[in-house]
Amino acid sequence: MKISIKDIAGLIDGEIQGDPLKNICGAAPFENAKTDEITFAGNAGFLKKIDQTLAGAVIVPKKFQASGKELILVDNPNVAFTKVLALFYPPSNPGYFTEKNKGISPDARIGGNLECGLDTLIGPFAVMGKNVTLGDRVILHPGVVIGDDVTIGDDVKIYPNVTIYDSCRIGSRIIIHAGSVIGSDGFGFAPDGTRYHKITHTGIVRIEDDVEIGAGNTIDRGTFGETIIKQGVKTDNLVHIAHNVIIGENSVIVAQVGISGSTTIGKNAILAGQAGLAGHLKIGNNVTIGPQSGIAKSVLDGSIVSGSIGMPHSLWLRVQNILPKLPELKKKLMEIEKRLKKIEKN
Amino acid sequence: MKISIKDIAGLIDGEIQGDPLKNICGAAPFENAKTDEITFAGNAGFLKKIDQTLAGAVIVPKKFQASGKELILVDNPNVAFTKVLALFYPPSNPGYFTEKNKGISPDARIGGNLECGLDTLIGPFAVMGKNVTLGDRVILHPGVVIGDDVTIGDDVKIYPNVTIYDSCRIGSRIIIHAGSVIGSDGFGFAPDGTRYHKITHTGIVRIEDDVEIGAGNTIDRGTFGETIIKQGVKTDNLVHIAHNVIIGENSVIVAQVGISGSTTIGKNAILAGQAGLAGHLKIGNNVTIGPQSGIAKSVLDGSIVSGSIGMPHSLWLRVQNILPKLPELKKKLMEIEKRLKKIEKN
Amino acid sequence: MKISIKDIAGLIDGEIQGDPLKNICGAAPFENAKTDEITFAGNAGFLKKIDQTLAGAVIVPKKFQASGKELILVDNPNVAFTKVLALFYPPSNPGYFTEKNKGISPDARIGGNLECGLDTLIGPFAVMGKNVTLGDRVILHPGVVIGDDVTIGDDVKIYPNVTIYDSCRIGSRIIIHAGSVIGSDGFGFAPDGTRYHKITHTGIVRIEDDVEIGAGNTIDRGTFGETIIKQGVKTDNLVHIAHNVIIGENSVIVAQVGISGSTTIGKNAILAGQAGLAGHLKIGNNVTIGPQSGIAKSVLDGSIVSGSIGMPHSLWLRVQNILPKLPELKKKLMEIEKRLKKIEKN
Repeated sequence: MKISIKDIAGLIDGEIQGDPLKNICGAAPFENAKTDEITFAGNAGFLKKIDQTLAGAVIVPKKFQASGKELILVDNPNVAFTKVLALFYPPSNPGYFTEKNKGISPDARIGGNLECGLDTLIGPFAVMGKNVTLGDRVILHPGVVIGDDVTIGDDVKIYPNVTIYDSCRIGSRIIIHAGSVIGSDGFGFAPDGTRYHKITHTGIVRIEDDVEIGAGNTIDRGTFGETIIKQGVKTDNLVHIAHNVIIGENSVIVAQVGISGSTTIGKNAILAGQAGLAGHLKIGNNVTIGPQSGIAKSVLDGSIVSGSIGMPHSLWLRVQNILPKLPELKKKLMEIEKRLKKIEKN
Repeated sequence: MKISIKDIAGLIDGEIQGDPLKNICGAAPFENAKTDEITFAGNAGFLKKIDQTLAGAVIVPKKFQASGKELILVDNPNVAFTKVLALFYPPSNPGYFTEKNKGISPDARIGGNLECGLDTLIGPFAVMGKNVTLGDRVILHPGVVIGDDVTIGDDVKIYPNVTIYDSCRIGSRIIIHAGSVIGSDGFGFAPDGTRYHKITHTGIVRIEDDVEIGAGNTIDRGTFGETIIKQGVKTDNLVHIAHNVIIGENSVIVAQVGISGSTTIGKNAILAGQAGLAGHLKIGNNVTIGPQSGIAKSVLDGSIVSGSIGMPHSLWLRVQNILPKLPELKKKLMEIEKRLKKIEKN
Repeated sequence: MKISIKDIAGLIDGEIQGDPLKNICGAAPFENAKTDEITFAGNAGFLKKIDQTLAGAVIVPKKFQASGKELILVDNPNVAFTKVLALFYPPSNPGYFTEKNKGISPDARIGGNLECGLDTLIGPFAVMGKNVTLGDRVILHPGVVIGDDVTIGDDVKIYPNVTIYDSCRIGSRIIIHAGSVIGSDGFGFAPDGTRYHKITHTGIVRIEDDVEIGAGNTIDRGTFGETIIKQGVKTDNLVHIAHNVIIGENSVIVAQVGISGSTTIGKNAILAGQAGLAGHLKIGNNVTIGPQSGIAKSVLDGSIVSGSIGMPHSLWLRVQNILPKLPELKKKLMEIEKRLKKIEKN
């Protein structure tokens, strides 16, 4: 694939410095780009050493100046580069969606009353219950199993061996990676003092538009009502989201995070890897939670919390610094006590 | 569905206050119940504001009194409500178990010599090895794969894309949620100083009656002998249970807990989310282990342990309180030392 | 199966003490072995009580002496025993690979242009994209889904419901347990201040020879380039390995470990359960990382690190000892301060 710098600049709304007719054949990172590839320099570190990349063109921030390189100047080089990557490496569907199988594979099984949009691709051994609604350009890979009454919007890609339980609502422009489970029963049981009685989970999971769910996630349905993953949320792999959790718009949940039942998370939150949140908390907007944190209390808007008791991040950093000095500290304390006793005797 | 208060009271062995012939059409939480729905008030908080629910009937503890509401008085309102929920919202099977497919789907594959009970439902693309035994009313969803010589009891529901390795024993009244893996090899290798040699795992997993396994669990088979999940155990999502672990009756394992090889857990234990247990431990009966705890020593009956070294819970709470004050503490110590030196000089 | 001690000794390169013609029918642990079974005594503890095993033969270290038992003396009894186990309990394939289905099941689906070695076994409902290459004696269980352009070497066993995304490279003598996902997109997004833009992941996952991947793992493809699992690595269950991670030869990753993007781990590392590693770190060779550790800095060759800030293990052990004494420590400090004030007043 050959694309001119002019055409690339058009796509990313950039200004060209250099030859607009030069052809580019691919996109690569700063260190590895070849002379016919485009790269980007998103920060001062890369901009300083812009002479060191072999790239045939570099996407840089507006107002940056350099000679001897074809440049495309844009507001946000990182974002622009994601568009260039998508241009050169458009998603392709595996060959198990053969010509013959285009549309709905004869090896898929559908329970009845499917409402199906245009250009849908359903792979072999995908299974759907009854009354399922699929939008346009939905792609269901092999081994995807979908319960009754599920609705899925447009431009949704569901990778192999994903399970979606009945009645869940999946929006548009969503990716769900392999092996994830959407809509399993929440972990709710009523004890009678001897044993546990299962609570029937009548709720659902609602996933809004522009969400990406990583591989091996488990997202439980509401006990009543809904577990909601709001617009633009991204989850990494092996994330656990319990019943009736609400995750606000554009929040980011890193790998192996666990969120307990009925906790609400605001917009633009970042939950770092392996963090765990207790149930029934209210986590505000623009909150950052550090890796492996254990959060047992609600967190106000804009806070950065870390550590296993959820203290403010700046304090946590100081505590972390002192922790390894604790043995020394204790020794010093004993020493002081001794010297003090000596003085007190006199 | 309309059911009279009298019929509901009969199901949950309750006393009626009010009109026994009033019809109820559903069940809902205290805050959301409509005038034709039933709810429950399980504790003093809800009982105090019983006038605020719109519910057409309320399940309350025995001896509770209120006027102007239809009440059903029972020993344990929470447990009673689970029965009412199951009454109004009985489990239904997705439409991929079509009439046509009732019994064993023509798209299921069976290795031979299947022994199969009554009213069994096997979905499309479920696969079984040879010499599998299924009890009555077993439901295998699509994508379930079961190895040779597996036995499964009565009233077992296995959700999509679950894998059960050969020779495992699954009891009766069991639910296994989507994507879980039962009977994979334990993590056992013999090092020779250069590389690791795989230890053949000849054991199995035995799951006793009334167990519910969450989504995305991994339960390894015994190296020799058995990994045992005893009667009434409930596991949440993404739980890891290693080879030869034994989990005692009615214990509860919350999401993302990991239990290392050969550890034994007693009855009625509660392991909170993301806790990790070392191998070869003995955890007693009625033990509670706090969230994210790292347990490296055995724990006596009835203990509540928390924190990354497994100290008693009450001590751990105090430590957690002091941890954020450590920097202040250290500063104070330095100050004291200075003042002390001053005195000592005089 | 009956095998003479002589034949067993030949397999494990051992010296016989006792009757070489005695027949052995199985292998079992020291405590459970019956009189016609073989066991091993790998350390002083077992050797001391060698009279207590009923085993018909015992594998012991060279130079060990005992009478009244058939012994096989070898360099490494643990490793020798793994070979004996494999001899008596050779892997057998489930009956869903029926005679009829030998080779490629008629219920498998292949996208085209499959290059396939000898004695390959592909189960029902396994699916492959186009241009897939399989070596000799590859076994794909039911529900395995493989994307385009994937290559797999010889003697590879992939358990049910595993997903391998396109273009990944799987070496020889590899086992991948059920439900694992290889090659999902890395967790990479470019923020524009309002929302996140997906970064197309053009890289792959490369798994070298002699690797075993546990159940429920998620291993992301490189953003560019490769995520590499080097020769002899073993991962336990529910392990998360992010984009562009490199794990060195013969390293061992215990259950529920999470490794963030672009981190490199050396040879012979041991990462204990639930440890979490930040991104872009360099972990040296022969490093041991304790359970639940949170590693935020690079680690030098040969280090043993533990705890949530990754301090040296010996220091961490001391800190762990002091942590529960913190309340007492704080009390003492307050007391000292009081006494000091008293002196200073005088």
